[in-house]
Amino acid sequence: MSQESEFSEGDLRNTGMSLKHDREWDYELDRIVKQVEEKGAKKVGLQFPEGLKRRGPRVADDIRELVGDDVTVMLSGQPCYGACDLDTFLMKRTDVFVHFGHSPMKNTDKVIYVPLFSNVDVFPIMEDALEELPEDEVGLVTTAQHMNQFEDMKEWLEERGYEVHTRRGDDRLTHEGQVLGCNYASAQVDADQILYVGGGKFHPLGLAMEHPDKKVVIGDPVNNVVTVADTEKFMKQRYGAVHRAMDAEKWGVIYCTKIGQGRWEQAQDILDDNENAYLITMDEVTPDRLRNFDMDAFVNTGCPRITTDDGPQFHKPMLTPGEYEIAVGNKPLDELSFDTFHGTW
Amino acid sequence: MSQESEFSEGDLRNTGMSLKHDREWDYELDRIVKQVEEKGAKKVGLQFPEGLKRRGPRVADDIRELVGDDVTVMLSGQPCYGACDLDTFLMKRTDVFVHFGHSPMKNTDKVIYVPLFSNVDVFPIMEDALEELPEDEVGLVTTAQHMNQFEDMKEWLEERGYEVHTRRGDDRLTHEGQVLGCNYASAQVDADQILYVGGGKFHPLGLAMEHPDKKVVIGDPVNNVVTVADTEKFMKQRYGAVHRAMDAEKWGVIYCTKIGQGRWEQAQDILDDNENAYLITMDEVTPDRLRNFDMDAFVNTGCPRITTDDGPQFHKPMLTPGEYEIAVGNKPLDELSFDTFHGTW
Repeated sequence: MSQESEFSEGDLRNTGMSLKHDREWDYELDRIVKQVEEKGAKKVGLQFPEGLKRRGPRVADDIRELVGDDVTVMLSGQPCYGACDLDTFLMKRTDVFVHFGHSPMKNTDKVIYVPLFSNVDVFPIMEDALEELPEDEVGLVTTAQHMNQFEDMKEWLEERGYEVHTRRGDDRLTHEGQVLGCNYASAQVDADQILYVGGGKFHPLGLAMEHPDKKVVIGDPVNNVVTVADTEKFMKQRYGAVHRAMDAEKWGVIYCTKIGQGRWEQAQDILDDNENAYLITMDEVTPDRLRNFDMDAFVNTGCPRITTDDGPQFHKPMLTPGEYEIAVGNKPLDELSFDTFHGTW
Repeated sequence: MSQESEFSEGDLRNTGMSLKHDREWDYELDRIVKQVEEKGAKKVGLQFPEGLKRRGPRVADDIRELVGDDVTVMLSGQPCYGACDLDTFLMKRTDVFVHFGHSPMKNTDKVIYVPLFSNVDVFPIMEDALEELPEDEVGLVTTAQHMNQFEDMKEWLEERGYEVHTRRGDDRLTHEGQVLGCNYASAQVDADQILYVGGGKFHPLGLAMEHPDKKVVIGDPVNNVVTVADTEKFMKQRYGAVHRAMDAEKWGVIYCTKIGQGRWEQAQDILDDNENAYLITMDEVTPDRLRNFDMDAFVNTGCPRITTDDGPQFHKPMLTPGEYEIAVGNKPLDELSFDTFHGTW
């Protein structure tokens, strides 16, 4: 989510990236090569999430072996932590562009999406998770990389007597049961306990903040551990940031220019409402980029996870639009809630 | 030049930004407001270099006071260290776009360039510099922000008996006597001593590396000090990086997507020449963005100052294209020279 290498306390990133299991990915080379041939492509762009960037050269080698010498393969060096981070510059300048590891928010024939499903066995950790799931009804969610096993997970739970509630969230989500860092609509089900199957705590903590009424059980097949999401430290950070921002006079209102992150109306509303608010546009929202702006606080209309997870790294309080409303007194403190994104690009 | 806040030893950045003199800038508000009115602009984009970003809100206030309520003023939050860092995204999405503090590499009616000339008195420090300039002939160069005093500086030197050599470098440079971090063609004159008038060591050290045969005297009116550019530490760093890269197998070849920094042919030549070279495309070239790529060394076809000044911050050796040729044995070590950019966008 950020280009910083030092993480502050309470940081949730990078928790699923250091994979303990060896994996074999299916890069769908045939599909890529076929498209290169069909289009007579001369330039092929490849984009990997941060945790898989080191695999780029090998994939490039495999493609180069199968296509003509006149094809140039290019690796995107832009930061990539999610589906929003599509390298549209490279996409526009290559004949075939492949985005690995995230499902599309919206289908377009400009991009080949290669999902990179994990082949880790999820059932041992689901077995361990059962003792944290005492009720008969359970919601089930997972991330893009375990999506290929979703139906099996659901059946597995049903065989053990659960009534399993699942749904496809909204247009932003490709699959039934899928969660994104910014969208947990698929967990809006009639069950008080939700089983999240997947690596890391990034997604389940967002889930627990979005649905504070539900018990969120994390079955992590990558790190082989079962935990229950605990948002307390996180929520304290959020309240702390809101309180610190209450004295702010000058506000920087961040409008993120990334595909899928632009909430223009929210930004414009704040500007209309507050004459001491200034609109700042950028793609990557990082502490270094904001340090030179002389603001007392920031409100980020872009990715909510930058705000909540990276928040402590910024030199001034960084709030979500909802938190901003509380800080300036438009809403009471008890309306503090998790910021999510809905809809598509 | 980078988003990093910690500087390594030998780093040349930020040396002219912490201004000791109070300045009054002429923001050319009238010109901006006139253009807003003429175009009936609804969106106005402002881009400041890092050192002036904190002035953005005040300039935005001044503009908002003079234009209609329906005009939205937007501040670019993209990193900005030079003329190359034009925020083309914001430029394309605003009716009037103003870039402050750098001269245009190429004129376009899409952008209002506001030069922000310094009003610091350059002559006291030039007086101090004379004792380092014993010869009769002297070259004279400066940066965009002192360009308005260039003719006066030249006359001042002539009045003191010097034959002053100046030239307009090439198409990349707007003014006679102007230097850029990546271009010192204006110092290619018939004089063994060059007087650089300007803040910081960033430009004169580049100049001294590009012209190792010349004595480069730095008259810094901002920090009020005269020094002679010394490239020794810097050159040792470059030789060190080249030596460390000699064992590299896998090379990352960086192609910078910024306007004015794309050297496609150089990148393509390296790829054609070396089957263990992989093309990586990005806009901001930072240590964090390269850390996840499993390369033994990098060669940067983009901004040479990222390579030379930020080089020690990268986790693997980072070379200029010329240094790459030495590291892989295509050229002898004594051909190591400073990497410069010529031509326009």
